[in-house]
Amino acid sequence: MSRYDFTTQRLYVESDLGAGGVVAATPDQMNYLCNVLRLKDGDPVLLFNGRHGEWRARLGTRSKRALALDVGEQTRPQEGGPDIDYLFAPLKRSRLDYMVQKATEMGVARLRPVLTRRTIAERVNVERLAANAVEAAEQCGILRVPSVAPPEKLGAVLANWDSGRRLIFCDEDAETTSPLAALGGAGGGSPPLALLIGPEGGFAPEERSAVLAVPGVVRLSLGPRILRADTAAVAALALVNACLGDWR
Amino acid sequence: MSRYDFTTQRLYVESDLGAGGVVAATPDQMNYLCNVLRLKDGDPVLLFNGRHGEWRARLGTRSKRALALDVGEQTRPQEGGPDIDYLFAPLKRSRLDYMVQKATEMGVARLRPVLTRRTIAERVNVERLAANAVEAAEQCGILRVPSVAPPEKLGAVLANWDSGRRLIFCDEDAETTSPLAALGGAGGGSPPLALLIGPEGGFAPEERSAVLAVPGVVRLSLGPRILRADTAAVAALALVNACLGDWR
Repeated sequence: MSRYDFTTQRLYVESDLGAGGVVAATPDQMNYLCNVLRLKDGDPVLLFNGRHGEWRARLGTRSKRALALDVGEQTRPQEGGPDIDYLFAPLKRSRLDYMVQKATEMGVARLRPVLTRRTIAERVNVERLAANAVEAAEQCGILRVPSVAPPEKLGAVLANWDSGRRLIFCDEDAETTSPLAALGGAGGGSPPLALLIGPEGGFAPEERSAVLAVPGVVRLSLGPRILRADTAAVAALALVNACLGDWR
Repeated sequence: MSRYDFTTQRLYVESDLGAGGVVAATPDQMNYLCNVLRLKDGDPVLLFNGRHGEWRARLGTRSKRALALDVGEQTRPQEGGPDIDYLFAPLKRSRLDYMVQKATEMGVARLRPVLTRRTIAERVNVERLAANAVEAAEQCGILRVPSVAPPEKLGAVLANWDSGRRLIFCDEDAETTSPLAALGGAGGGSPPLALLIGPEGGFAPEERSAVLAVPGVVRLSLGPRILRADTAAVAALALVNACLGDWR
């Protein structure tokens, strides 16, 4: 892949994208492009919508309250990504923002906040998570923005577990200390996966038992050192992608 | 390993540690313990020095300008860690702080800032890097603080390369797209390693050639998506630790 263009602003849009199309910038996007970046007529941006790849567009007709983006040529075709759900207990705000950004960079398909006994954050702001995912995708050239599920209690998540999706649980007390060996036993290929990182206070004993009772659960050790949840997320996703995802 | 104690403050000290010893808190540590945390006589802290493991100590004799920490019992023996040098081009401050923290959590032995043609940061503040490494080790229960080398130009680093240390280079254009295959070809065991993550603008062509000319260099692809440098650091270190380090 040729060196990625980090200099042209990328924007996520909902509209369909195709040659000759015109996309209306949102008010926030207009403000950012015109007032913050001070882009001029004809200046380029890159647009993506998660469906049609990435397209170069140029700033077009502008009025007080509206900005048109004139779609030109496709710069990159749509790419898929690994079918990975990322399940996580919410953290305090700035570290949660970071964790969402990192999970997005690592290509997850879905972000699923899970409420546990020892969850620190009282309320999960789904819009904020989604905004962070969009921004991370925009900044890193990701062509697909992960969806964000409403927070769910761990018990409900496990009770409704999709048996076609293999659960990988980051577990300090995993018997197999080699994560590659643990993932190697997960059957190969690129199956639908879910990665669960517990709260920093750990799971309550009954929650842990419930997680370990999911059929086919893979217990993943991440080495002898304690990792913060956002570090563990990237580390685990790197291993999962390398063994079972699209890093092959 | 039993659930780590995140509630007791951990401090890195230079002094030797042993039962019945007394450690003098530094002025900053005294301020933090007494004025910020408002700890009282007899309250516990955990001390480590990178040599003697981790020890519980209690706040002792206090005067206007001095605080003694009375060393009690050892809570954890000294642990080693992987022999990994982490070479990186400096980033803008907050992301560099974060990268140093993550590299510390992932257990690297040495932090080696490398100056390249496209390095964004003009000056590397070695004390700041070291302070971030200490803080990360304190917060995450790491028993060994990585050393921080003064920044060195890439050319000099490569010209003086220690042939006993295998260089792993995170390379988007690596021919082998599977990082596990690339690392698997590195000979197994736990050899001395160095991981090099280039600047976000990429290496200049002649720099890249020089890196690829290091005997035995391993080119590591980190998947089809662009990763920010701090994400790449954790991802690469996870893979390296899992294949060649102490995650086995």
